[in-house]
Amino acid sequence: MQVSEGRSFLGRFKYGDDLLLSLNAFCENNGITLGVFSVIGAVSSAKMGYFKQDTREYTECVILDETLEITSCLGNMSLNDSEIFVHAHITLADHNGKCFGGHLMPGAKIFAAEYHIKELTGAELNRSHDPETGLNLWPVRKRTEDRG
Amino acid sequence: MQVSEGRSFLGRFKYGDDLLLSLNAFCENNGITLGVFSVIGAVSSAKMGYFKQDTREYTECVILDETLEITSCLGNMSLNDSEIFVHAHITLADHNGKCFGGHLMPGAKIFAAEYHIKELTGAELNRSHDPETGLNLWPVRKRTEDRG
Amino acid sequence: MQVSEGRSFLGRFKYGDDLLLSLNAFCENNGITLGVFSVIGAVSSAKMGYFKQDTREYTECVILDETLEITSCLGNMSLNDSEIFVHAHITLADHNGKCFGGHLMPGAKIFAAEYHIKELTGAELNRSHDPETGLNLWPVRKRTEDRG
Repeated sequence: MQVSEGRSFLGRFKYGDDLLLSLNAFCENNGITLGVFSVIGAVSSAKMGYFKQDTREYTECVILDETLEITSCLGNMSLNDSEIFVHAHITLADHNGKCFGGHLMPGAKIFAAEYHIKELTGAELNRSHDPETGLNLWPVRKRTEDRG
Repeated sequence: MQVSEGRSFLGRFKYGDDLLLSLNAFCENNGITLGVFSVIGAVSSAKMGYFKQDTREYTECVILDETLEITSCLGNMSLNDSEIFVHAHITLADHNGKCFGGHLMPGAKIFAAEYHIKELTGAELNRSHDPETGLNLWPVRKRTEDRG
Repeated sequence: MQVSEGRSFLGRFKYGDDLLLSLNAFCENNGITLGVFSVIGAVSSAKMGYFKQDTREYTECVILDETLEITSCLGNMSLNDSEIFVHAHITLADHNGKCFGGHLMPGAKIFAAEYHIKELTGAELNRSHDPETGLNLWPVRKRTEDRG
């Protein structure tokens, strides 16, 4: 879906706060309902989920209780049941360079987190239950609708 | 090279489709000849290539036949022999959080894939054979040309 | 902090050059003092640092002396003591798909590196010593200042 570009934000989240909740609060405080973001930095813990594609459940989890670099945290924000919903995937590295990744859940404590948040406007994307996958997803646009 | 900003697209690719071919088809359907993108989501398989820098060949491959989260898929689109060419690198995580990465090849089956595609305009970048590396690359600009 | 969008650059760094120093030189040559970037490509070596959150020191290092794909290199540029400072985190993959990540340091030799650099304007972000973490960080904005 074609969107317009809104405001752009660059900054740092607060030491000790939760990474996913910080992204969510930023959107709420700034009235962002659609956008994309990236974060780099470091955390002192992390919790990541994995969607079981066969049973259609987020049942698996990896919890890391150590200091890790955020080598990449990418995602988007849109509406889910009229509430802002941040969808973030993260790649982390331990101090031997070993990487861990997954769907970011609450539980990642910020050591330092530098964000770039790009608001998108001119359209509304709402997540709703997708029977094919069991996830809350955006509708897939027909090819003709993609044409800008 | 300095470029201008074109259209911006946010959306989801179709369940079951190939990730790289979906990116390519999106560009073709929307007349995009230059741009950058990011994707997060999940796949039920993946195929990645590696360029052997000594023999100058893409001979190595990692094929994964399992459900994986896309923690990051980043890249660009430009022209190669007048055809749109999508260059994508991907990082994936299995359900223990273990990461795999490489040059994305056809063979990654989409479970859910949310894209942000940013068209760039005002310039043309063409890939051509680069004798130094053996890859199809853009020309390296001289320093003075970089100046905006 | 809300920022405005400046120039946008897409291109390739020179074969054999250092990745971090190339990003730095690009900013200096083009007068960029604030921005964000992404890079994909390949290197023939890499050096990454890790901040020890307990002793507040960058003492640990992973040095890789092999050909690796850059699956993601993300970060930002801002001022540190009035000089341009590039903060880059990287995820790399070896030819078995195994990933390595960390804080990019000088020592990553470019095989091919395709960048997208986005200048941001209308604000100034300066790094300074942050006593809480021991890092050179941007100030954390109060909630009211985030409001655009």
